[in-house]
Amino acid sequence: MSRVNLQSLAKELGLSVATVSKALKDSYEISIETKGRVLALARQLNYTPNPYASSLRRKRSNTIAVVVPEVADSFFSQAIRGIEEVAQSKGYHVLIYLTYESSDKERKILEDCQNGRVDGVLLSVSSQTDSHTHIEHLMDYNIPVVLFDRVLEKAHTSKITTDDYDSAYRATAHLAECNCQQLAYLSISDQLEMNNHRIHGFRQALADRHFSPEACRVIHCTNDTATAHTIIQQLLASPNRPDGIVASVEKLAPPVYAICHALHINIPAQLKLVCFSNTSYAPVLQPALTTVTQPATEMGKAAATILFKTLKNSGGVVKPEQVVLPSALQVRASTSGMAT
Amino acid sequence: MSRVNLQSLAKELGLSVATVSKALKDSYEISIETKGRVLALARQLNYTPNPYASSLRRKRSNTIAVVVPEVADSFFSQAIRGIEEVAQSKGYHVLIYLTYESSDKERKILEDCQNGRVDGVLLSVSSQTDSHTHIEHLMDYNIPVVLFDRVLEKAHTSKITTDDYDSAYRATAHLAECNCQQLAYLSISDQLEMNNHRIHGFRQALADRHFSPEACRVIHCTNDTATAHTIIQQLLASPNRPDGIVASVEKLAPPVYAICHALHINIPAQLKLVCFSNTSYAPVLQPALTTVTQPATEMGKAAATILFKTLKNSGGVVKPEQVVLPSALQVRASTSGMAT
Repeated sequence: MSRVNLQSLAKELGLSVATVSKALKDSYEISIETKGRVLALARQLNYTPNPYASSLRRKRSNTIAVVVPEVADSFFSQAIRGIEEVAQSKGYHVLIYLTYESSDKERKILEDCQNGRVDGVLLSVSSQTDSHTHIEHLMDYNIPVVLFDRVLEKAHTSKITTDDYDSAYRATAHLAECNCQQLAYLSISDQLEMNNHRIHGFRQALADRHFSPEACRVIHCTNDTATAHTIIQQLLASPNRPDGIVASVEKLAPPVYAICHALHINIPAQLKLVCFSNTSYAPVLQPALTTVTQPATEMGKAAATILFKTLKNSGGVVKPEQVVLPSALQVRASTSGMAT
Repeated sequence: MSRVNLQSLAKELGLSVATVSKALKDSYEISIETKGRVLALARQLNYTPNPYASSLRRKRSNTIAVVVPEVADSFFSQAIRGIEEVAQSKGYHVLIYLTYESSDKERKILEDCQNGRVDGVLLSVSSQTDSHTHIEHLMDYNIPVVLFDRVLEKAHTSKITTDDYDSAYRATAHLAECNCQQLAYLSISDQLEMNNHRIHGFRQALADRHFSPEACRVIHCTNDTATAHTIIQQLLASPNRPDGIVASVEKLAPPVYAICHALHINIPAQLKLVCFSNTSYAPVLQPALTTVTQPATEMGKAAATILFKTLKNSGGVVKPEQVVLPSALQVRASTSGMAT
């Protein structure tokens, strides 16, 4: 049986190749009757357009997907840059999918990746994600998944993280060394394992320094900007407001600065702030923002490198790797001097 | 002729369905000999895996692509949010491709979109792009392309822009009203039509106020962060430094603040700054940054809405629309008071 192609379809139907091609693309130029005839024969003969056929032949789409909660955060845009660098060197395209912190959207995206659209997936899970079945399910289709930054410990695959516990510990210890007495940790999620490691580091640093539990508050600000603003405002307007804050994500820094300005709380004299952030604005804020800076580009590169190693060992089954890259505490003016 | 499927392939080959499936996915569990037999028969019978076949049947991938230069810029991340909102309501996936300002990468991405991977494309062109043939070429495949923000006038398709000329004119007039005498416009590209409209608005506002050409400098800072920093540093360290700056993109604001701080140039007393920017840091900078804020989310929504309208009128041929949404000049402290 010879391969069914546009030419053979056209010949069989007594139409031009152009007409058949347009009919298959549902062109407005072709009548419904003709489209019907073309589609009927195409189905009958199991015709597939060339790109799909070639995709089957190559068995590779030369595309990888990056699935992340958002791109407004500098961490993710820098990580993607690292991924793109590695992918480009391998001649691969990179598709980016955004989950907007929805586990439902994340699951649907991974289902969408089952059909051969991509060869592999780099995933940083949403703040709602509490199960890894969708990841395992995709890997059952021989599409490897590498987790980065926000990982699920139980997922049996490679994971690239930063030293979340250690860096939160160091940031908190730094605040304690600056004589902060009342500490607060601001988070956007109580689900993320990454965040729980950071909270653990925060609490342990203070426990090691004999802080009372009341002096080590964890505040869940939610992922909604307006809600987060209200919660932080209430915290900073309260009589027992903290004098030291560890903010777990970049987007929590602008509201802290804005609210301190509005409430005439001086940073760093009355409140010291350290934020997990890769923003280029950190050094130009007044005062400049002390950050835990993640090696975002390097994490992206490491994740992509492991994914391509997995793809090379086709079948997608290689021993999972765990890579932990260190973050850097960059001390700036927002934590300088002694607390009042 | 009945449809060739995994079951019929397995029966013909005397193998299990699982083995055939794994062989087609190039699993390491299957021997090369078996893979060879399976692939040979699959090709002979024109077998296509279900997703591709169903894609042919539906003729739709239910996916649109967003092709943008970068996502580190708040404008693009907000525009993508608007696009996602509309796409989600239509049950569509959104893929994001990044060009990193390379016209070559942009062309390759659009070629990659020809194969039915996506039903339509939303494109904001790279700063190197000076031809629209790759856009027309993709539309020849009946895949509609809607341009947004950074458009090419000559491309025969729908375009969503903001009022680049008017908003640059207003921003510049605002600086003149603040008594700035020496104006500079900072750009990252001398190719982008959008940028040229803004430059035109900048020049016209000053011509209308009888500024000499020497007092209306246009400085191309390039897209490289380090180079831009050097160029801005030279500008601000020179004896005839400007006392008013219009920065055309968000990422040029941090270096201006950093360099002014280092050179002890007071904003706004000695230098007034207005920046095209959607960053959430604008109000918390010291002084707060005056911005031309683009309706990013609305532009994304408008672009996606027009794309879906085009997709509905299948064939992708509808009368191109031109939508211009107004930007807002948000005056803050970086342009307050009188120039020295």
